[in-house]
Amino acid sequence: MTGFTHFDDKGAAHMVDVGAKDVTERSATATARVLMKPETLTLIEQGQAKKGDVLGVARLAGIMAAKKTPDLIPLCHPLALTNVTVEFSVDREASAIDIFATCKLRGKTGVEMEALTAASVAGLTIYDMCKAVDKGMQITGTRLLEKTGGKSGTYQAS
Amino acid sequence: MTGFTHFDDKGAAHMVDVGAKDVTERSATATARVLMKPETLTLIEQGQAKKGDVLGVARLAGIMAAKKTPDLIPLCHPLALTNVTVEFSVDREASAIDIFATCKLRGKTGVEMEALTAASVAGLTIYDMCKAVDKGMQITGTRLLEKTGGKSGTYQAS
Amino acid sequence: MTGFTHFDDKGAAHMVDVGAKDVTERSATATARVLMKPETLTLIEQGQAKKGDVLGVARLAGIMAAKKTPDLIPLCHPLALTNVTVEFSVDREASAIDIFATCKLRGKTGVEMEALTAASVAGLTIYDMCKAVDKGMQITGTRLLEKTGGKSGTYQAS
Amino acid sequence: MTGFTHFDDKGAAHMVDVGAKDVTERSATATARVLMKPETLTLIEQGQAKKGDVLGVARLAGIMAAKKTPDLIPLCHPLALTNVTVEFSVDREASAIDIFATCKLRGKTGVEMEALTAASVAGLTIYDMCKAVDKGMQITGTRLLEKTGGKSGTYQAS
Amino acid sequence: MTGFTHFDDKGAAHMVDVGAKDVTERSATATARVLMKPETLTLIEQGQAKKGDVLGVARLAGIMAAKKTPDLIPLCHPLALTNVTVEFSVDREASAIDIFATCKLRGKTGVEMEALTAASVAGLTIYDMCKAVDKGMQITGTRLLEKTGGKSGTYQAS
Amino acid sequence: MTGFTHFDDKGAAHMVDVGAKDVTERSATATARVLMKPETLTLIEQGQAKKGDVLGVARLAGIMAAKKTPDLIPLCHPLALTNVTVEFSVDREASAIDIFATCKLRGKTGVEMEALTAASVAGLTIYDMCKAVDKGMQITGTRLLEKTGGKSGTYQAS
Repeated sequence: MTGFTHFDDKGAAHMVDVGAKDVTERSATATARVLMKPETLTLIEQGQAKKGDVLGVARLAGIMAAKKTPDLIPLCHPLALTNVTVEFSVDREASAIDIFATCKLRGKTGVEMEALTAASVAGLTIYDMCKAVDKGMQITGTRLLEKTGGKSGTYQAS
Repeated sequence: MTGFTHFDDKGAAHMVDVGAKDVTERSATATARVLMKPETLTLIEQGQAKKGDVLGVARLAGIMAAKKTPDLIPLCHPLALTNVTVEFSVDREASAIDIFATCKLRGKTGVEMEALTAASVAGLTIYDMCKAVDKGMQITGTRLLEKTGGKSGTYQAS
Repeated sequence: MTGFTHFDDKGAAHMVDVGAKDVTERSATATARVLMKPETLTLIEQGQAKKGDVLGVARLAGIMAAKKTPDLIPLCHPLALTNVTVEFSVDREASAIDIFATCKLRGKTGVEMEALTAASVAGLTIYDMCKAVDKGMQITGTRLLEKTGGKSGTYQAS
Repeated sequence: MTGFTHFDDKGAAHMVDVGAKDVTERSATATARVLMKPETLTLIEQGQAKKGDVLGVARLAGIMAAKKTPDLIPLCHPLALTNVTVEFSVDREASAIDIFATCKLRGKTGVEMEALTAASVAGLTIYDMCKAVDKGMQITGTRLLEKTGGKSGTYQAS
Repeated sequence: MTGFTHFDDKGAAHMVDVGAKDVTERSATATARVLMKPETLTLIEQGQAKKGDVLGVARLAGIMAAKKTPDLIPLCHPLALTNVTVEFSVDREASAIDIFATCKLRGKTGVEMEALTAASVAGLTIYDMCKAVDKGMQITGTRLLEKTGGKSGTYQAS
Repeated sequence: MTGFTHFDDKGAAHMVDVGAKDVTERSATATARVLMKPETLTLIEQGQAKKGDVLGVARLAGIMAAKKTPDLIPLCHPLALTNVTVEFSVDREASAIDIFATCKLRGKTGVEMEALTAASVAGLTIYDMCKAVDKGMQITGTRLLEKTGGKSGTYQAS
């Protein structure tokens, strides 16, 4: 286990110098799960079919948030993302919606934080849209599922 | 259980009209937990004392993110927050850092989303600062702990 | 006809001092029309029913843009909008979609620019979503329909 | 006529994957026309010569807005624009100001939306600067004039 | 001399709670001086009269930056400024341009940082516009000239 | 001495076309000095060791501001910075803190404005953190120390 890369040898925070890193194809997929009451999940599912498209709003919020990552995470580099997708899958048994966000880039640094930010903000937006009916919703299991590209290569969550 | 407030009767998303709501003192506290390897937690704790202040960076990121909430969450109102704090507590046994974010406002709508956004972005920043040593970290239990003020009054997570 | 208010007596641009203005309820409604090929309109209408919700994306973009007005229009004041709505109506004969954006505020200055910005960005987003099939679309008739509140009172487009 | 590119095959909005597209020189020019009372046009023209430079403010607003396009248009990619210009031409007979915005990029995706956003925001800023004397101004004919570069090649408005 | 207000008693940064502060009229004026070669100053002055309005661009940049203060200064509150002005005065003898920025607000916290940010960014913009001819320009004497309103009352720089 | 590059031959401001410029490694270092009372400097130095880390907050603010440069300086290009660092050095005799900001990029245009913006905003943040105890602080000597890369090559402040 090496040390943190976001501090110099005096402990001062800095944006890591990626100038000498290779330009490679990079992708990252993150996930998050929104736990809610079964009634809330039913309302969301009905909205998909009829009116009040909670997941459509959350998807856009997640995509737009990926682009704001360097504004939000202090030491992230500004990146020219080539692709962002946000998908949802309903888990009736767990009374939950699973969020999967994928970002891609041809560049010098990874897009893990972009994918994690997209998943998180999609989850927060679901909360916002539904909080009038279910203040107890929780966002859980926000984590990196997979990354490819770059010097450290492929990572797959266990 | 009433319906969603962020859609009109045709199912179109809108920013809720809060013009007629009372101006009251409002506050909200949200929490999130970052699970990590014990070695990562040790590195963070050492940084606090010596160098590489992960939590100091994450605290600022969370405070600044609270101010960006209306940019991130599509249907949130722009608000003139009067107070934002982000605190951390280490849970050695769970090998976790707990985040507590509180926002306050004297206004017409609540600050739950601001507190949740602050907690989430603080958690994402911890991930970013430590991901070189621990890609498997998870953010979990992101939820509203308490809110006060407004028509719906006080909410306390169970 | 009086002179421009956004310049001082030496001709220098400034943000008008609204400190002494009354706090009143204010609203503004703006409109814009997106002209397109009949086939494009058909595709949009099918998307509403089935998949590919162009207008849902454009509505959100318009609402979010209203909040960004002070970032976009150099001399606009930052405002705490209490309500933003964006609605669409299809005009088959004109092969057009009409956009109606309404903003509200209890404050010291009007929200005309917020409504116009919401309508414009909703129109630009429709263009973006459909430009792969119809690069010749036009946004036309972007104008203020109505405003209420403030010293100058109600305005109604003729 | 092909389908929309901003939706996947389930109808979910996404930021198109441009990772495999060629890097080429790209440019786009958009236009918009601001219709106003002859007296308003006279005031603007006098300002150019003497004081109160409406078009100077609108030009800057347009240039800065081009840079904000990925913040405004939900599915636009963040781009490293290499050039933005905004020009005006007065049409006394039509009592109008014509806006021409050009953006350039060496990259994987086009800059049509950047040029259209620049022209639109320049028009909105003219409205803002003059609305105290002419609330009935209209922005009309906002459209793409020309684009070059990319797989679809050159487009010229008819 | 009291302690810093931006840290709690454990030394953690926070956004100060201004909820209990009085709403009063507040204003602040800041200044900064841009030193340059006499030839550069001549070019700027010629531009004012003829073409290439450096100070017009810098004035707008300063006004817009005042609105971005809470995005830039981590612990600043978001504020609804009621007035921003940026003025310039040429000091031929010192071969310098003096910048004066004034912000006003009716609110719970002061606008010193907004005025200082406006003056600083106006100065940076002058540098940007002229750096092709004079890389050695300096911004100096950036400081608060005066503030009024709030519990601490009026401050006048000595 | 050549003319300004940010205006076309009619005197209209524009974002310079850098499309034909070479992609080279570029770096820039800027500095600024914050003058303060000796007691204020003592408080800051104590905070470094114990609690209330003024310089840690200012460092982050400077790094984040470098990323916002194209939002702040109207005619700056959006850039994909590869590295940002902000360092401080205490000058007890001058009762001052010196700020050194360095930005790097592999691209078509220089990063002088990014480095100057980082240094300026770090200085403003120090002011903000300490203004409760020392309103008379000044930021002085904000200037470019060195740049490398690009057609104009290396510049070294005299």
